[in-house]
Amino acid sequence: MDQKRKDSASRSRRRFLTDSTAIIGGAVAAAAAPAGALADDKAPSNGNLPPNVPEWMKAPGADVGSQPYGTPSPFEKNVIRNIPKNQPQYTSSASRTPIQDLDGIITPNGLFYERHHGGIPEIDPAQHRLMIHGLVDKPLVLTVEDVRRFPSQSRIHFLECSGNPSYTAMKGKTASDLVGLVSCGEWTGVPLKILLQEAGIKPGAKWVIAEGADAAAMTRSIPIEKCLDDAMIVYSQNGERLRPAQGYPLRVFLPGFEGNMNIKWVRRLHITDEPVYSREETSKYTDLLPSGKARQFTFYMEAKSIITRPSGTQKIEKGFNEITGIAWSGHGKIAKVDVSVDGGKSWKAATLQEPVLTRALTRFRLPWTWDGSPVVIMSRATDETGYVQPSFEELTKPRGLNSFYHNNAIMRWQIAANGEVTNGNA
Amino acid sequence: MDQKRKDSASRSRRRFLTDSTAIIGGAVAAAAAPAGALADDKAPSNGNLPPNVPEWMKAPGADVGSQPYGTPSPFEKNVIRNIPKNQPQYTSSASRTPIQDLDGIITPNGLFYERHHGGIPEIDPAQHRLMIHGLVDKPLVLTVEDVRRFPSQSRIHFLECSGNPSYTAMKGKTASDLVGLVSCGEWTGVPLKILLQEAGIKPGAKWVIAEGADAAAMTRSIPIEKCLDDAMIVYSQNGERLRPAQGYPLRVFLPGFEGNMNIKWVRRLHITDEPVYSREETSKYTDLLPSGKARQFTFYMEAKSIITRPSGTQKIEKGFNEITGIAWSGHGKIAKVDVSVDGGKSWKAATLQEPVLTRALTRFRLPWTWDGSPVVIMSRATDETGYVQPSFEELTKPRGLNSFYHNNAIMRWQIAANGEVTNGNA
Repeated sequence: MDQKRKDSASRSRRRFLTDSTAIIGGAVAAAAAPAGALADDKAPSNGNLPPNVPEWMKAPGADVGSQPYGTPSPFEKNVIRNIPKNQPQYTSSASRTPIQDLDGIITPNGLFYERHHGGIPEIDPAQHRLMIHGLVDKPLVLTVEDVRRFPSQSRIHFLECSGNPSYTAMKGKTASDLVGLVSCGEWTGVPLKILLQEAGIKPGAKWVIAEGADAAAMTRSIPIEKCLDDAMIVYSQNGERLRPAQGYPLRVFLPGFEGNMNIKWVRRLHITDEPVYSREETSKYTDLLPSGKARQFTFYMEAKSIITRPSGTQKIEKGFNEITGIAWSGHGKIAKVDVSVDGGKSWKAATLQEPVLTRALTRFRLPWTWDGSPVVIMSRATDETGYVQPSFEELTKPRGLNSFYHNNAIMRWQIAANGEVTNGNA
Repeated sequence: MDQKRKDSASRSRRRFLTDSTAIIGGAVAAAAAPAGALADDKAPSNGNLPPNVPEWMKAPGADVGSQPYGTPSPFEKNVIRNIPKNQPQYTSSASRTPIQDLDGIITPNGLFYERHHGGIPEIDPAQHRLMIHGLVDKPLVLTVEDVRRFPSQSRIHFLECSGNPSYTAMKGKTASDLVGLVSCGEWTGVPLKILLQEAGIKPGAKWVIAEGADAAAMTRSIPIEKCLDDAMIVYSQNGERLRPAQGYPLRVFLPGFEGNMNIKWVRRLHITDEPVYSREETSKYTDLLPSGKARQFTFYMEAKSIITRPSGTQKIEKGFNEITGIAWSGHGKIAKVDVSVDGGKSWKAATLQEPVLTRALTRFRLPWTWDGSPVVIMSRATDETGYVQPSFEELTKPRGLNSFYHNNAIMRWQIAANGEVTNGNA
């Protein structure tokens, strides 16, 4: 067949190729080789390769537009949000992104992690309002369409829950069980600075109290400096409008700050001279130290990384394996990710996928040949400020073990002689 | 209430703030202000703003994880693929991305444009094989898992049908009707170069004939230079596995080349010394010139742009409007987008959203104040090679009007005195 095809191709060239710049005579073009010339039943001449014409080539497939809004292949039905089992209720709960099943840095909207405190409201955008008031010259009540008329901006940033993972969750089975409360997308909206300028900030304004339109009326205090820097009021996520679970139709977005402060379904921005001390910045989202005092207003998510492949519940084979994972920092760009394949004795710099973006997931990769002996693998991120992701011991030495949030410790995977990967945290 | 809240906040500060570094006593933190402190029924003190506590704040919303794989808000139900009406069949047809409804540069997977010639096959990845044969030292038959073991790469690139739009489609109503056969995503896969090196290319190899596992056995010839440059065999799109309509489980990806060559559901790569002259590179996907000859192997998608807001069927109001749209070039990065709001008499440089990526959509924006008089607006892209997007007249002068593909002409929108936007192409 190969010879036959070659002859056919030669004939084609003689028939159709009229000059060296690959211009063909249009009139005879319709007589060219039919589609599917290669879809024959014969093996190619070099090697006994199975042509293996599968069933799905023998009849037309599904119609164009049979899914006006597309969904994944049925064969990917297990790639879903990681939802904790046997919770007493799911109104205030979380689901995790299946990071071990994903590639690259963009999280598809259907798999964004969730953390809600009063369930997901279904909001009619035509009825929704954003009020800006307090220490302003001109209080504003804006519709969603009003917000969309202001100058816009699009930025790729991660979003992460500050309890990712809690100290007690360090024994999770999968990468998602451990740090699946992180996702990354392209966010489009209005710089918050522009809206505040529109209202006119009065002297003495130091905080913006943001309130969500959910049943929890989630409320957090944001320093005015962040609001005048890179904060946004966002309406789109990966091109389309925000998903309901992500704050449709409007949310606060604070690049690099803990997820809870990025108020979803935002309905009110109250400009004040002091924070409101809401539940989520006093009894929750603070870190109890050994001294009995608590760290409060711990805005930034520090540098973190995790190997997503190979990772827990996966199985590898001897020989070549690419080690890959994600790294991120609330303080800016990832500068370096080191990987160890000997339990932390030695480290090797991984390759970072370009472009490395500020406050975005960064994909890292390291080629590796596994000899079949049991090993512990781990990654360690360094951000552009020079900050290095700590071990759990380094992290908890000053902070103690009473804390819950802001655990950015190095995560370890144990690979057994049979290739099975399990949690390797102590 | 404002005063009341201020008093309460002051009390909070007195009660909880123990030093200037914002450390609070952990033991008493649990007694802090309850969530929803701002969700009262009273108007704020400055201005008679409606507090307008909506229904959806008065009862818990949907459970976390109620959508294991999330979907858009029901209020966005009209943001779907743009499917042509009254086609004789939809096995070989196209659907368009609703670009006028999208922001940023990432197209969500559910809204990627489609162009199929034999419908969408439903492929079991465990049964799928990729064969590499022909002018190689060692023919290969790879499983999907084999392909995933090779070193990987992630890149954000656009994908565009070469008939976007056909010359006769220049009277479409919406931006999607005109150039909605373009989408952009983050693609992850193996550099094709690595797979070809694995097989070992023999001297004389000049083309790679790629064949899809669909009922059309879509077959195209790719120059070996592209295959050894930035071509990929892709398995993931925006983080998750390829959607069936995008080639699940494996597709060819050729950054900047016309969509049809990016063979979906790829099952075979035949390395040859000459092209196969399949139907889609002879009778189709060639450009018939006035001379009767046709341009063939017109791989690259040239620089193009379109204003997506304001655009056809939208309506604007007097005063400030942000003009925004997308630009892209198969030859590299977009260097500049000029916008005219006076029918092409004068042009002003738009702002390009960073990062500007090679062979990716680039979002451009221009602030504009509309005085209410009828105008024609349009955009004109220049890429990093210096190539400037032509007017339809400039494009068709050498090429004539018999062609169908590779129309990258400037698109015009007419804005009437009442703010209604319609197609302004001649």
